[in-house]
Amino acid sequence: MIIGIVLDSIWCTRKEETLTGIKLMTVKLLDKENPKEGDIIGAGVGEKVLVTQGSSARRAVGFTESPVDATIVGIIDEKAV
Amino acid sequence: MIIGIVLDSIWCTRKEETLTGIKLMTVKLLDKENPKEGDIIGAGVGEKVLVTQGSSARRAVGFTESPVDATIVGIIDEKAV
Amino acid sequence: MIIGIVLDSIWCTRKEETLTGIKLMTVKLLDKENPKEGDIIGAGVGEKVLVTQGSSARRAVGFTESPVDATIVGIIDEKAV
Amino acid sequence: MIIGIVLDSIWCTRKEETLTGIKLMTVKLLDKENPKEGDIIGAGVGEKVLVTQGSSARRAVGFTESPVDATIVGIIDEKAV
Amino acid sequence: MIIGIVLDSIWCTRKEETLTGIKLMTVKLLDKENPKEGDIIGAGVGEKVLVTQGSSARRAVGFTESPVDATIVGIIDEKAV
Repeated sequence: MIIGIVLDSIWCTRKEETLTGIKLMTVKLLDKENPKEGDIIGAGVGEKVLVTQGSSARRAVGFTESPVDATIVGIIDEKAV
Repeated sequence: MIIGIVLDSIWCTRKEETLTGIKLMTVKLLDKENPKEGDIIGAGVGEKVLVTQGSSARRAVGFTESPVDATIVGIIDEKAV
Repeated sequence: MIIGIVLDSIWCTRKEETLTGIKLMTVKLLDKENPKEGDIIGAGVGEKVLVTQGSSARRAVGFTESPVDATIVGIIDEKAV
Repeated sequence: MIIGIVLDSIWCTRKEETLTGIKLMTVKLLDKENPKEGDIIGAGVGEKVLVTQGSSARRAVGFTESPVDATIVGIIDEKAV
Repeated sequence: MIIGIVLDSIWCTRKEETLTGIKLMTVKLLDKENPKEGDIIGAGVGEKVLVTQGSSARRAVGFTESPVDATIVGIIDEKAV
């Protein structure tokens, strides 16, 4: 997993059907710019989050047919980092 | 998922059989140059798109036997980024 | 696998349920900054560790439903590197 | 998928058994130097090729037991890029 | 697959159980520093080797439960590169 900061939400009117209902947020990672992540935790803008990638991300969303490859799986407690 | 801009289409006359019927487009990602992505959404040149990678990309194309490792799964609404 | 140095622990009060009980540590990798790794070995701060990634990491944690994508699988003997 | 240029063939007299019969070629990718790819298309030196990675590459070779993680799946038509 | 040079062996007294019996070597890759790879070929220090990654590496080791994510699968013949 890697740590990122939630920057903003994004919307896609035209998208793969199984992405419907998944919240998409712009996350600034420590060494990559602006990847988009699914959100199962309810993270808010400015929060420091834990992001999992690859096939683990697809499992975390719970829809195994959904084409998600990165998911926010935790919000890091403020004093922790 | 990561964000990219659709640059152009490419054609491969000689290709792995299961790639037949999959539209191949040049996508400029934010921190990588010119990867090639399958397209299931119908994205046009110049559009900002959401790209999924790895085994999630193969599922998104729908042909689980196809050697696709990156797929356009959404077109980002203009005001969203 | 890649080599890293354990920097610190982190806590996430709000997290994906299956992450409960997995120790999260900040690991400085040789060429990436501050990824977070699950810990099944009991590594301490400052130790040089061996980190596995991807679906292999999920298997190493033992909870195949857990969204882990990187796990500490060994502590490198001091004279070895 | 990513685009690369075929540089040369390589040979490994000592290799994992299931690699026997797979043609290994040096491919220069756009942003990585000299990865080695399996070849199922018959690409020649100097040709611009489409390379798939990860578990999709293993499926493309057809030997699901073979430890291949990158495969040439198409030769790009000259005017296309 | 990518090409690397074998630098040294490492030992981990404390490690995930299924890593027992797998030889761990420091491999310098062309564009990454000091990743650690499992070794099923018997490569020696200074040899140029072919390394496979991800789930393909786990299959190459033969222990599908082992948390290996990179494995040496070939020794490159000297005149080949």
